[in-house]
Amino acid sequence: MKKILFSLLFVLISSYAVCQNPYDLWLQYDKIEDKTLLDSYKKQVSNVYLNLNSPTGDVIKEEIEKSFKGLLHIEPKFDNKTPNLIISTLNKLDPSLKKKLSKTSNINDEGYVIQHISEKGESKIILSAKTEKGLLYGVFNFIKQIQLHKDLSKLTIVDSPKIQKRVLNHWDNLDRSVERGYAGFSIWDWYLLPELIKQEYIDYARANASIGINGTVLTNVNSNALVLSPRYIQKLKALANVFRPYGIQVYLTARFSAPIETGDLETADPLNAEVKQWWKDKAEEIYTEIPDFGGFLVKANSEGQPGPNNYGRSHVDGANMLAEAVAPYDGIIMWRAFVYSEEKPEDRAKQAYSEFKPFDGKFKDNVLVQVKNGAIDFQPREPFHPLFGAMPDTPLMMEFQITQEYLGGMSHLVFLPKLFEEVLEEDTYTQGKGSTVGKIIDGQLSNKKLTGMAGVANIGTAKNWTGHQFGQANWYGFGRLAWNPETSAETIAKDWLKMTFSNNAEFVDPMSKLLLDSREAVVNYMTPLGLHHIMAAGHHQGPGPWVKDMPRPDWTSVYYHKADENGIGFDRTSSGSNALDQYASEIQEKYSDPATTPDKYLLWFHHLPWNYKMKSGKTLWYEITAHYQKGVEQVEDMQKTWQKMQKYVDPQVFKETNMLLDIQLKEAKQWRNACLLYFQQFSKMDLPDLIPEITKDLDYYKSLETPYAPGIRPSWN
Amino acid sequence: MKKILFSLLFVLISSYAVCQNPYDLWLQYDKIEDKTLLDSYKKQVSNVYLNLNSPTGDVIKEEIEKSFKGLLHIEPKFDNKTPNLIISTLNKLDPSLKKKLSKTSNINDEGYVIQHISEKGESKIILSAKTEKGLLYGVFNFIKQIQLHKDLSKLTIVDSPKIQKRVLNHWDNLDRSVERGYAGFSIWDWYLLPELIKQEYIDYARANASIGINGTVLTNVNSNALVLSPRYIQKLKALANVFRPYGIQVYLTARFSAPIETGDLETADPLNAEVKQWWKDKAEEIYTEIPDFGGFLVKANSEGQPGPNNYGRSHVDGANMLAEAVAPYDGIIMWRAFVYSEEKPEDRAKQAYSEFKPFDGKFKDNVLVQVKNGAIDFQPREPFHPLFGAMPDTPLMMEFQITQEYLGGMSHLVFLPKLFEEVLEEDTYTQGKGSTVGKIIDGQLSNKKLTGMAGVANIGTAKNWTGHQFGQANWYGFGRLAWNPETSAETIAKDWLKMTFSNNAEFVDPMSKLLLDSREAVVNYMTPLGLHHIMAAGHHQGPGPWVKDMPRPDWTSVYYHKADENGIGFDRTSSGSNALDQYASEIQEKYSDPATTPDKYLLWFHHLPWNYKMKSGKTLWYEITAHYQKGVEQVEDMQKTWQKMQKYVDPQVFKETNMLLDIQLKEAKQWRNACLLYFQQFSKMDLPDLIPEITKDLDYYKSLETPYAPGIRPSWN
Repeated sequence: MKKILFSLLFVLISSYAVCQNPYDLWLQYDKIEDKTLLDSYKKQVSNVYLNLNSPTGDVIKEEIEKSFKGLLHIEPKFDNKTPNLIISTLNKLDPSLKKKLSKTSNINDEGYVIQHISEKGESKIILSAKTEKGLLYGVFNFIKQIQLHKDLSKLTIVDSPKIQKRVLNHWDNLDRSVERGYAGFSIWDWYLLPELIKQEYIDYARANASIGINGTVLTNVNSNALVLSPRYIQKLKALANVFRPYGIQVYLTARFSAPIETGDLETADPLNAEVKQWWKDKAEEIYTEIPDFGGFLVKANSEGQPGPNNYGRSHVDGANMLAEAVAPYDGIIMWRAFVYSEEKPEDRAKQAYSEFKPFDGKFKDNVLVQVKNGAIDFQPREPFHPLFGAMPDTPLMMEFQITQEYLGGMSHLVFLPKLFEEVLEEDTYTQGKGSTVGKIIDGQLSNKKLTGMAGVANIGTAKNWTGHQFGQANWYGFGRLAWNPETSAETIAKDWLKMTFSNNAEFVDPMSKLLLDSREAVVNYMTPLGLHHIMAAGHHQGPGPWVKDMPRPDWTSVYYHKADENGIGFDRTSSGSNALDQYASEIQEKYSDPATTPDKYLLWFHHLPWNYKMKSGKTLWYEITAHYQKGVEQVEDMQKTWQKMQKYVDPQVFKETNMLLDIQLKEAKQWRNACLLYFQQFSKMDLPDLIPEITKDLDYYKSLETPYAPGIRPSWN
Repeated sequence: MKKILFSLLFVLISSYAVCQNPYDLWLQYDKIEDKTLLDSYKKQVSNVYLNLNSPTGDVIKEEIEKSFKGLLHIEPKFDNKTPNLIISTLNKLDPSLKKKLSKTSNINDEGYVIQHISEKGESKIILSAKTEKGLLYGVFNFIKQIQLHKDLSKLTIVDSPKIQKRVLNHWDNLDRSVERGYAGFSIWDWYLLPELIKQEYIDYARANASIGINGTVLTNVNSNALVLSPRYIQKLKALANVFRPYGIQVYLTARFSAPIETGDLETADPLNAEVKQWWKDKAEEIYTEIPDFGGFLVKANSEGQPGPNNYGRSHVDGANMLAEAVAPYDGIIMWRAFVYSEEKPEDRAKQAYSEFKPFDGKFKDNVLVQVKNGAIDFQPREPFHPLFGAMPDTPLMMEFQITQEYLGGMSHLVFLPKLFEEVLEEDTYTQGKGSTVGKIIDGQLSNKKLTGMAGVANIGTAKNWTGHQFGQANWYGFGRLAWNPETSAETIAKDWLKMTFSNNAEFVDPMSKLLLDSREAVVNYMTPLGLHHIMAAGHHQGPGPWVKDMPRPDWTSVYYHKADENGIGFDRTSSGSNALDQYASEIQEKYSDPATTPDKYLLWFHHLPWNYKMKSGKTLWYEITAHYQKGVEQVEDMQKTWQKMQKYVDPQVFKETNMLLDIQLKEAKQWRNACLLYFQQFSKMDLPDLIPEITKDLDYYKSLETPYAPGIRPSWN
C-alpha cells in the first residue's frame, strides 16, 4: 500500500511541474495547486445543468469537461438534478432563477450573464444568455475566472461585445505562403480540403471563440480569384462547418477582377449589368453552400490591385455593387481604405482621407470601410488615421496588424495591445472632447448600426501558432480589444500571463511591466520621436534609413525622414504637406507648433534642425541618440526580468524566449547603430557619451543582408 | 482519505487512456499496463550505472530518465553502487563483467552488446560498446525491448550497423519550400539560425539516433550556392552542434557552379587549378567550423543542373576534384548517378548505366556513387537499377525515396519498407546466385570499405512530422534498413506498430497485414503489371496516362506506356531499347520472354497485345482491369481493418487516418477509372463485370485539376 501511495504521489508531484503546452495558448488548464481554492471550486461547480442539443452545446460541454478535468481534476456531472452550475439560455431558464439575475436586459445577442445566487439556502452559479453563442462566450469567461483564481461566490458579470464584427484577416495565399507571416506557413491546407479536417482547424476556432472573435477572412488581401471557384467554395464550406459551432463566420477576399479572371466576362466594371449579375450569382452560389458566409474583404485600386477606378468608377461604386450582391443574405463588404495613387505625388499620409472623405454617407448599409490604425502602414508608432472622425456617416472598421511586419517579425517581443490601446484612446475631437477613436469604432458616437475591428493574423504552422511565444499575447489582446475597445492593456497583459503561465504575483507583476514597456522599447530602438518608415526595403526587417531609389519615392526611407544638413523629420504642417489639416482644429492647433507637439509625434509633423531644443532642454540630436540607447537598454532589462522567471515557465519556452531576446537585443543594437551612424552624416554632431562605442561603420550595416527573409512572396526576393 | 485515494485513482485511470502524442513518433513511452511485467522491469533496471561525462552521455542519461519515467513510472537511480543496469564503454567496463559478454569482438565502432548476466547470484544487464555512439544506439534498442515487452532476463543482443553512411536527404530549399515535400514546409528555419535553436532540431536528432541514422543532407539536390556562404556555414554549424551528441553528421549539397555564383571565379571546370583551390579553401572553411562535417552530395549534369560536362569533363573528374577537397578531413562525396542527357533520345532507363559503368574503379576512395533504387524515378514499382552489380570496384550508395512523390503524396497510406525490402532482396546475379542488391549495398560482395544508404526525407513542419501518421513508419523503416538491409519489412511493421500504438495482438496482427499489403495496393491502383510513369505532369499527383507534349518525350506518359491498338508496354528487350542487356545473363534470359517474365515487370520489359494470354489464362486487358480493381478493393479492406482499431489509437489519429483513407480510396478509384477509360480507347475491349460502372467519362478525369499541389516549386506551378 505504501508503495502504491508513493507511486501515486509521484504521479501527482510530477503533474505539478511547470509544463505548459504552448499549442494550448492561453487555454492552459493545469490543476490548481492551492488546495483550499481547489476544494472550494470543486464544491461550487461539481454538477452542471446543461441541456443544449446542438453543435454549440457540444462545444460547451467539451470545454466544461476539459477545463474541469484539467483545472480541478474532476469529471463534471451533468445529471441535471441538483446542479450548482446552471448553463441555459434565458428563454429556457427557470423563471425563479431568471428573476434573480441582474441586468439581463442590458446584454445583446452575443452577451451573457454569470451570477452567483442563493436559492433556498443553496449556492448556485447561473450562466445565461440570449443565444447559445452568448453562452459559449460566457463559458469561456467563466473558465477564465477559475484560471484567474477568482472568488466564484461573488461573481456577477454582465457582459456583451461592444463591436459586432470581430475579425481576423489572414494574409494567407493559396500556396500556403503568408504575406508578412512570421510563424511558418498558412495553417489552411487547401489542397487536402474539404476531405481532411485537421485538428488545428478545430483548435483555431476554439481559441478564437475563447476571446470572442467571430469572423475570419481566410485569404490574402492581395487575393487570387481561384478561391471563388466552385472547387474552393467546397473547401471553404468544410472550414465553415468546423467554425460554425464556435460562432465564427468565414469571409473571403474578393479580387475585383474575378469576373474576368474566371474567363466569364471581359470587364469587371461595377456598373456593368453583367458584372453585377456575375457577383450576384457568385454570392448565391456561395450562400447556397454556406448560409452564414460573412461576406467579402476587398483591397481595390491599391498597390497594383484591380478595382473600380480601372473603369473610371469610384470606391463607392465598387463597394456598393458587391454590397448589393451579398445583402440578401445579410453579408457585408469590408472595403479597405488603404489606397494610394500610382501617380499622385501627394504625401501618402493624406491620400486615403482625400479619396474617401468625400464618400461619407454614400456607402450602402452593409459596407464597412476598413481603415488601418495609421495613415502610413502599421509603423511602430503612428498618429491615428485622420479618417477616424472624418466620416461620421460611414461605419469605419479598425484594421490593426497583429503580425509584426514592422515590429521585428517573429523574433521581437512586443506587446501590441499597448499600441492598440494608444490608438483607441486617441481623441479625434470630431464631436467634441472625448471623441476617441475607440468610440468611433464601437459606434457610440454616431450610433452606428454596423461596427467592426480587424486584426491581420500572426498565426501559422509554428507549433505554438505564433512563432514567438509572446505573439500569442497579441492574438489574445486583439480579441479582447475587439470585444471591448476600452479594455486596458494592463488587464490584458495580466490576464494573458496568468492564463498562460502562472498566477504568482512574483511572475505576473514584473512580467506585465515587461509586456507593457515592450512596445515603447521597439519604438525607441526603431523609430523614436515620430520617425517612421525607415526600415529595410522589401522584407521590412532591420534598419534601412538609407533606402532610396525605389520604384516610388514613398517606398523609400529618405522620403519619410528627410534628413539633411538642416535637420530631420517630415513637415506635415501648413508649411509642408499639410496632412495636419486633415485632423480636428484642436489637434491642428497643438501639433502645428513643435513646442506643443508631443515628443512621440514630433518628427512625424515637423522637420527640425539637429540642434532644436527639446522640452528636456537637450538638443534634438541628443534626444534621438538617447531614445535609441534607451530602447537597447529596455531590451536588456527585458532579458534581466526574464532570467528570473525560469521557475514559472515551461523549460522549452524559457530557453527559446532567451534565444529570441538575444536576437532582439542584437537587432536593437543594429537599429541604434545603423540609424545613428546614418543620421550622423547629416547632423555632423558627436555621439554623446551615453552611446557605447560603435566599432563597425555605416557600410557594414548597409551590407547586412537577410536572404530568404520570411513573409515575402518569392517574386519579391 | 477515501476521497484522496479516489482522486489519485482517477489520475491513474485517465493516464491509461489511449493518448499517443504523434509528435513523439515511435518513441511513445506510455506506462506499461501489465502489472506483472511492469514490476519485473522495475526490479531489473531500477539502478543504473552510467559514468560518462560528455554530451552523448547526457543524451543517454536523459533518454533513460525519460523512458523509465514514462514506461515504468520510476525515477531511475544513478548512484552507481549496486547497479542492475550497467552502461559502459568496453574499455571502462569491469574486466570480470567484460569476460561474461559474448562476441564483443564482432561489433564495430557503432555496434553494441546488451546482455543479461548473473554475477554472484545477482542479475545484471550489461550494455556495452566500443564508443559512446555505440552505447547510444544500444540504449535506444534497450528501451525498445521494454516498449516491445520483451523478457529482459534472456537478453543477448550483439548488433552493429551493416552500412556506414545512413543518411537522410532533405530536398529542402532555403526559402523553406520542400521539393516533393508533403508534410508542410522545411523544419530548417535558416533565417533565425544560428541564434534560434528550435526544440524540433533536438527532437529530430533524437528520433534519427533512435533508428541509427548518422547523417543528414540538409539541402535540396537542386541546390543553391548560397548555403556555402560564410553566413550559412554559421547556421549549419549551429545545427551540427545540436546533432553531434546524437551521432549525426551534417552534409550539404554542393552546387557545382558555386565558384562562379559566389562571384569568385569565372569557371567551375574541375580540372582548373583555381577551381580546385576554391573547393579546397571552401572545405577548409567549413571544417574549421564543423570538424565532423560529413561532406557533399552532388547532383551534376542532370535535369539542368550544372556539372563537369559543361567543361567537357566527366563525372569522375568532378567527383574526384571535390573528393580531394574533403579528403584531408575524412569527408566524403556522394555523387548522384541520376543523370539523363538533355539531348540523347536513348531510353532513360539505360542512360545512368551507359554513362557510369565505364567509370567503375575510377572514383577516389571517398566517393560514393548514389544510385536510385530503379532507373526511372522512384515509381511505385521498378526493377532494381542495372548499375547495382555493374560497378564492382565502386562503392554504390542506395537512394530510396521516403517522401511519396509518386505514391500518393501525404494522403496515401503506403508502407514503403515493403518496397525497399523487395529491391534489396533482388538478385543481380553479378557474382553468381545470391548477389542481392542488399549485399552490394552493404559491401559484402566486393568487400567495400565505404558503404551507404540515403533516404529522401518525408519530414516537414507538420505537427506529426510526416503529415500522414503512417509516413512515420517509412522514416522508421528506412532507418532500420539502413542499419541492416536484411531486416524484414514484417519485423519493421510490427516493431513500429508496437512502439507507436500498442502491443496488443488484436491490433498488431491485422495492422501489420494492412501495412505489408499497402504497397501492393498502390502498385495495383496506380501502375500494375510493370506500367510506370503514367502520372500527372509536374506535381505527379493523380493519374495522367494521357500526358504528352512535354519539353522532352521521356517526361510524358505516352512514352512509357506506349499504348496503341497493338498493345501496351515498353519493349526493353533486344527488339526494343534493349535496356535488358544491362542486366546479368540470368535475368536477361528470364525477362526476354514474356512467358517467363514475372507479371509484376511484364509491361516494363514488353509491349504486348491486349489479348495476350497471361499466366492466369486471362487476357492482358482483363488482368490490367483486374489489378486496378484489386487495388481499389485493397484500400477498402484497409478501411475495414482500420475501423476496428479505434480503441488502440489516439482519437485524433484515428479520425485523421479515416479521412485520409477516404481520400486514398477516392484517388484509387480515380486512378482506376482514368487509366481504364484511357487504355480502353486502344484496347477497344469491354470492361469486365468486376469493374463497377464508371459514370464519368475520360474527359472528366482529364479535366481534374489540382492547383497549388504541394511539393512543387512556385515556378513549376
